[in-house]
Amino acid sequence: MSKIKIGLFGFGVVGQGIFQVVHRSKNANAEIVRICVRSLGKPRTADAKYFTDRPEDILDDPQIDLIVEVIDDAKAAYDIVKRALLKGIPVVSGNKTMLAHHLPELIEIQKTHHVALLYDASSCGSIPVIRNLEEYYDNDLLLEVKGILNGSSNYILSRVFDHSEPYADALTQAQALGFAESDPSFDIEGYDSLFKLVIITVHALGAYVAPERIFTYGIATIHDSDIRYAREKGVKIKLVAQVVKVSDEHFTMFVMPEFVSPAKYIYSVDDEYNGVVIRGECYDRQFMFGKGAGSLPTASSILSDIMARLHDYRYEYKKLKYVQKPDYTTDITLKIYVRYTTTDIPGILHFEKVHERYASDESNYLIGDIRLSELIAKRSLLSGQDVFLANIPIFFLNRDN
Amino acid sequence: MSKIKIGLFGFGVVGQGIFQVVHRSKNANAEIVRICVRSLGKPRTADAKYFTDRPEDILDDPQIDLIVEVIDDAKAAYDIVKRALLKGIPVVSGNKTMLAHHLPELIEIQKTHHVALLYDASSCGSIPVIRNLEEYYDNDLLLEVKGILNGSSNYILSRVFDHSEPYADALTQAQALGFAESDPSFDIEGYDSLFKLVIITVHALGAYVAPERIFTYGIATIHDSDIRYAREKGVKIKLVAQVVKVSDEHFTMFVMPEFVSPAKYIYSVDDEYNGVVIRGECYDRQFMFGKGAGSLPTASSILSDIMARLHDYRYEYKKLKYVQKPDYTTDITLKIYVRYTTTDIPGILHFEKVHERYASDESNYLIGDIRLSELIAKRSLLSGQDVFLANIPIFFLNRDN
Repeated sequence: MSKIKIGLFGFGVVGQGIFQVVHRSKNANAEIVRICVRSLGKPRTADAKYFTDRPEDILDDPQIDLIVEVIDDAKAAYDIVKRALLKGIPVVSGNKTMLAHHLPELIEIQKTHHVALLYDASSCGSIPVIRNLEEYYDNDLLLEVKGILNGSSNYILSRVFDHSEPYADALTQAQALGFAESDPSFDIEGYDSLFKLVIITVHALGAYVAPERIFTYGIATIHDSDIRYAREKGVKIKLVAQVVKVSDEHFTMFVMPEFVSPAKYIYSVDDEYNGVVIRGECYDRQFMFGKGAGSLPTASSILSDIMARLHDYRYEYKKLKYVQKPDYTTDITLKIYVRYTTTDIPGILHFEKVHERYASDESNYLIGDIRLSELIAKRSLLSGQDVFLANIPIFFLNRDN
Repeated sequence: MSKIKIGLFGFGVVGQGIFQVVHRSKNANAEIVRICVRSLGKPRTADAKYFTDRPEDILDDPQIDLIVEVIDDAKAAYDIVKRALLKGIPVVSGNKTMLAHHLPELIEIQKTHHVALLYDASSCGSIPVIRNLEEYYDNDLLLEVKGILNGSSNYILSRVFDHSEPYADALTQAQALGFAESDPSFDIEGYDSLFKLVIITVHALGAYVAPERIFTYGIATIHDSDIRYAREKGVKIKLVAQVVKVSDEHFTMFVMPEFVSPAKYIYSVDDEYNGVVIRGECYDRQFMFGKGAGSLPTASSILSDIMARLHDYRYEYKKLKYVQKPDYTTDITLKIYVRYTTTDIPGILHFEKVHERYASDESNYLIGDIRLSELIAKRSLLSGQDVFLANIPIFFLNRDN
């Protein structure tokens, strides 16, 4: 078997990790022959002969068998991936933002141009979630995929909860350690988790739901009072993304902070780790746990996709072709906790039922049942610094994950 | 796509689970058309029209696309699987005993007869260990696979440790709950874990090591004094199977009880659950956790293999073809705990170094460094009811899994 020749786009933290990993793996049968970067001026950790700043030097090079794209800019990534696929060059990508927005088109191009796009690294770094959902949980007995998909926000919450550090310090530390994306709001507002969830859902249930249709709430406005409340109840607050079948015909999905009790698997997913629970009708719960971010974990996931291409692997998107597929619904009830001070939460949110009310000089909270559709409709009114909300998972099923 | 037609061998707990699961999965595109059982006399939970007691009724039926073999008898399973493969009929099997002993021959037949044998269900039930090692951790950066592979012995140890139940009661309970194999010694002597480890190693490192060459020690002789000792040290005793690269050129493997500290992932794998840690150079540790045994978890794993056949999936055994493969060695040092009374352990076992000695009226123990080859050489002398040994994992690496 001759060596697969790779053109690499991007030489940031992940790109350098890939360069290192591909060369370290003796049996990998792959080599990086060209690297395209935005600016040739920077000092690099690899020989200058590899580098170019012209995408065409890779896209038009007939010797290149595979393009690996790990650039930070979703628009540029989309442009490169689409051009490569249209030319029939297979691509490995780690860009969740780009994928979450363009998957339907990119799936279509893969089909019409008989070309493969792999992106296991885009969701949960080194944890093989996509591949397992596509291949192993390849049947309609899947009920739920739920997990901590963002290492950076989880790191922050761990510091705040387990080490009683101030939120701002924890955020600074996450950035210093390189867990946080270049724009930290991406992590802490929940968008990173959201985009991963969109990709996961395509492979879990064969359904694409555009990101803007999905309720997403991050941890940016968490306060000491929320942490105190959770501690008193013996739970942790985690940023959880989930897609859940609520009936044979419907599924729902959302990203929001959740009160997680010690009995749940994800309770002990701390620091920068990711953890995913896959629940099915027969196998109950599978739990996968590992490093979700960082240079080498992501690079090793990219390497797995590269190796898969050596054997002509491609996602078949089998579930997209299922006859009986569930539809997305937001017409379900959640039980939530909302903390607020000046924002008029009781005036804004229509609850089906209020279970608890608490008021004090400092802050107030409400616990009540609310439609997910109501949360989506009022989303823009819930972003004040004085508002924080969290899911209290008692809904749908008697589950313990 | 036309429905895949399955001939099923075996209609015990797992066979019935498969029958149920295949019919429940609406998109599975598979149906069971014939079931071969040992005796037609028994009352069955499926229509009598399915059943036969003649293997030929399945093996010679040209309409059958796939054979699923889940019988309890390793010899009969080997006979059926080999005959099917030689006839070019793909097989899904869950029989770890048979596979651990005959894999090299069965891999060769798959190659020469261009036919597939899948067996993800044989190791860790619903946890997709084999498939992930084969496909996802498909590179030589893998350093270690370690885990609790036997649900029954783990259930017993959990009852004994966490619920302070007598060992005998726990064993009876495991059998009543259906976790234990028909011959419980298979579970508690470590053979079930051993056979799974042999299969896992083929897919982890591309190396087949015959079961009889591997040190295996179970939990059958565990005593109150061992449990007391472990409790005092703040650790649990778990039956752990592991394959570990000890250098670029060598790996080792063994099955034995181990003192597991609370910092390790497998510490919290309790009851009938299985947990596997995959460690690699880049991704650090991945942890997979789920139900390792039982009717439906195993059946759902078999269903995954059936679905994979719908897409012509086969193991490529890529790692067997690697140029640079590590060799098996037993020439390594372990630190172990040995408890004994009448058996003359100090006279039998040659330790490189003894760290601790304890003697009392009731029992004695030694903690020392010993070669794995020495343990293998003296294995038959260590099976007395008064002897128990456990690995104290400080060796090789500074690891925490």
